[in-house]
Amino acid sequence: MNRLSEFLDRLHNHNFDAAALMPTANLKYLTGLSFHPGKRLNLTLIHNATPSVILPALEIPGIRDHAKNLNLYPWPDEEGPHTALVNALEPFNSTIKIGIENVSMRVMELLALETAAAKRGLTLKTEDITSLISDMRMVKDADEQANMAEAARRVEIALETTVSQITEGMTEQQLARIISDEILSAAEGESFDSFAAFGPNTANPHHLPGDRPLQKGDLIIIDCGATHNGYASDITRTFALGDPGDKKREIYNTVLKANEAGKTAVKPNATGEEIDRATRKVITDAGYGEYFIHRTGHGLGLDTHPCHEAPDLMEGCTQPFAAGTTFTIEPGIYIEGLGGVRIEDDVVITEDGYQSFTTFNRDLMIL
Amino acid sequence: MNRLSEFLDRLHNHNFDAAALMPTANLKYLTGLSFHPGKRLNLTLIHNATPSVILPALEIPGIRDHAKNLNLYPWPDEEGPHTALVNALEPFNSTIKIGIENVSMRVMELLALETAAAKRGLTLKTEDITSLISDMRMVKDADEQANMAEAARRVEIALETTVSQITEGMTEQQLARIISDEILSAAEGESFDSFAAFGPNTANPHHLPGDRPLQKGDLIIIDCGATHNGYASDITRTFALGDPGDKKREIYNTVLKANEAGKTAVKPNATGEEIDRATRKVITDAGYGEYFIHRTGHGLGLDTHPCHEAPDLMEGCTQPFAAGTTFTIEPGIYIEGLGGVRIEDDVVITEDGYQSFTTFNRDLMIL
Repeated sequence: MNRLSEFLDRLHNHNFDAAALMPTANLKYLTGLSFHPGKRLNLTLIHNATPSVILPALEIPGIRDHAKNLNLYPWPDEEGPHTALVNALEPFNSTIKIGIENVSMRVMELLALETAAAKRGLTLKTEDITSLISDMRMVKDADEQANMAEAARRVEIALETTVSQITEGMTEQQLARIISDEILSAAEGESFDSFAAFGPNTANPHHLPGDRPLQKGDLIIIDCGATHNGYASDITRTFALGDPGDKKREIYNTVLKANEAGKTAVKPNATGEEIDRATRKVITDAGYGEYFIHRTGHGLGLDTHPCHEAPDLMEGCTQPFAAGTTFTIEPGIYIEGLGGVRIEDDVVITEDGYQSFTTFNRDLMIL
Repeated sequence: MNRLSEFLDRLHNHNFDAAALMPTANLKYLTGLSFHPGKRLNLTLIHNATPSVILPALEIPGIRDHAKNLNLYPWPDEEGPHTALVNALEPFNSTIKIGIENVSMRVMELLALETAAAKRGLTLKTEDITSLISDMRMVKDADEQANMAEAARRVEIALETTVSQITEGMTEQQLARIISDEILSAAEGESFDSFAAFGPNTANPHHLPGDRPLQKGDLIIIDCGATHNGYASDITRTFALGDPGDKKREIYNTVLKANEAGKTAVKPNATGEEIDRATRKVITDAGYGEYFIHRTGHGLGLDTHPCHEAPDLMEGCTQPFAAGTTFTIEPGIYIEGLGGVRIEDDVVITEDGYQSFTTFNRDLMIL
């Protein structure tokens, strides 16, 4: 059964009449459709094997290859999307329950749907179906796993050549640019903007690379990823320029043990909570619990961390994972003034444990 | 009066009790706060001179410099944002009217606000305030204009060096990468992903650069931009590799005349509709009206076209523009099978007409 059929089955089993999807990875996964993100309304209504796409007229040339399997409702800028949306709702009557993605649909699209439904005299109910799609996407088939393994292999080639170019005095932005260039040489694309932080900035897991020059004794965090056939890798390694001193070594070794403990907990039917606890325990037992300020990891596949791939590896995530589920294990310790360490691998659950797509050296590399 | 005070005046004049802003350019403009975009809830409630920021705990290190002017409500991953949001609503009672940005707030944030307000026993009303902020942002002061002029100057340096590297057989992706590298050499950053299309692909204004090799007779569209102190430039030029033939020359000359006619219509109190009509008339009169499939231009400043800078230059936009308003003029003709042409400049309304920040050669350059 193809993905769209399976999705329709799931939709109907949950008593939805249709889904209204934003132009994100979910849409690409289910239909192959891929759009430039924009502010214009672009919604795909799925209620049978022929999705209805309400889209800006200027997107039409880009989807010509898919058009024969779609009902298209293009809207020109001067007209706006209302009429197209009303027309697309033609197959429905009385009450309609539409599944939406709360985490990517904007208020604009929700109000436009409500207005169009009212115009048709429909009573509209909306409900989040994010988990309905993410449950499908979480478990990767052999082809998807092969793409992810290849994406991991390629980012490691890029990381290897990047590390040899790290020099005292270079800025975070310069290093981020080198990483990005090396990824684009080694792979089809970056899976997200490459991250580089030096010294005290490593204590901020969401630092934006800036103009701080690299100094002796600095920790260096690189977080980057490549894509292969659209599937992502995501790796973090922490390095040091010269001897970082005992305290930073202790942090490093604690994070490394947490990374190992996390992976050891990965097996069929493990939950995100269990893996998070196993990882976090190492850091808490070492006295650094309060400095591990994020979840242990996130899903990986067509999306990466700015986006919405399930699962989350954190407290409260009690859904047992099936073999084929892919995610990151990325514990970290972040101490203001001192710096931070994060070590991140991409793993897949196998029949009897896990496989790490990431194989890059995990010992503290002193440059 | 600073921006935040002016915004608060406008909010209260429109009977809003507060605004709830997403981490976008609007927030940066009003408060200086800038965040890594993400899926986690990150909302800033503005109701007096000290904004309340409900944010993921891991964002705290990144905003330390701003923290003294803020009330912070961090939420850790394992807890979720609900309690933080409820706490942030403490100053309000009975009915509260909150201004939101329909085009960037997601259903997730809207529902979270509704749930938190209900928890506090508040009656919540939400209404779009996008135009309230965009009216402020549209008109640029002298510093902002200087930044935009510099961003335009720098992207032209990058474009100049890029053009000299265009060779037969290179792919769109390779060219896009060169543009991007040249922009990062010449400026602080790209204002959006650089666009390159060859041959028939130029007929799709939202084409994603692919692996088509450049061939003799191809039209080449490059659309790119740089930032300077966060302010954007955005330029499109169309080139040809070898003689493109009479038909493509005719299209080129028509678009060039439309670009000139559009700019000539730019003056204080002109409307987006008037400028669009003046531009479009040239193309329609030449018989290509149906092939100009997008608006004439868009606002430019802290955001560029994937985003939400006002104004739009299109039919129905009847708001008179004040001096200092900045936007693009970018007519195009796109003919399937043949190709497309677009010529884009960045302009500002002056006291008696316009100034073009963009000065790059507009004659058809045959490479």
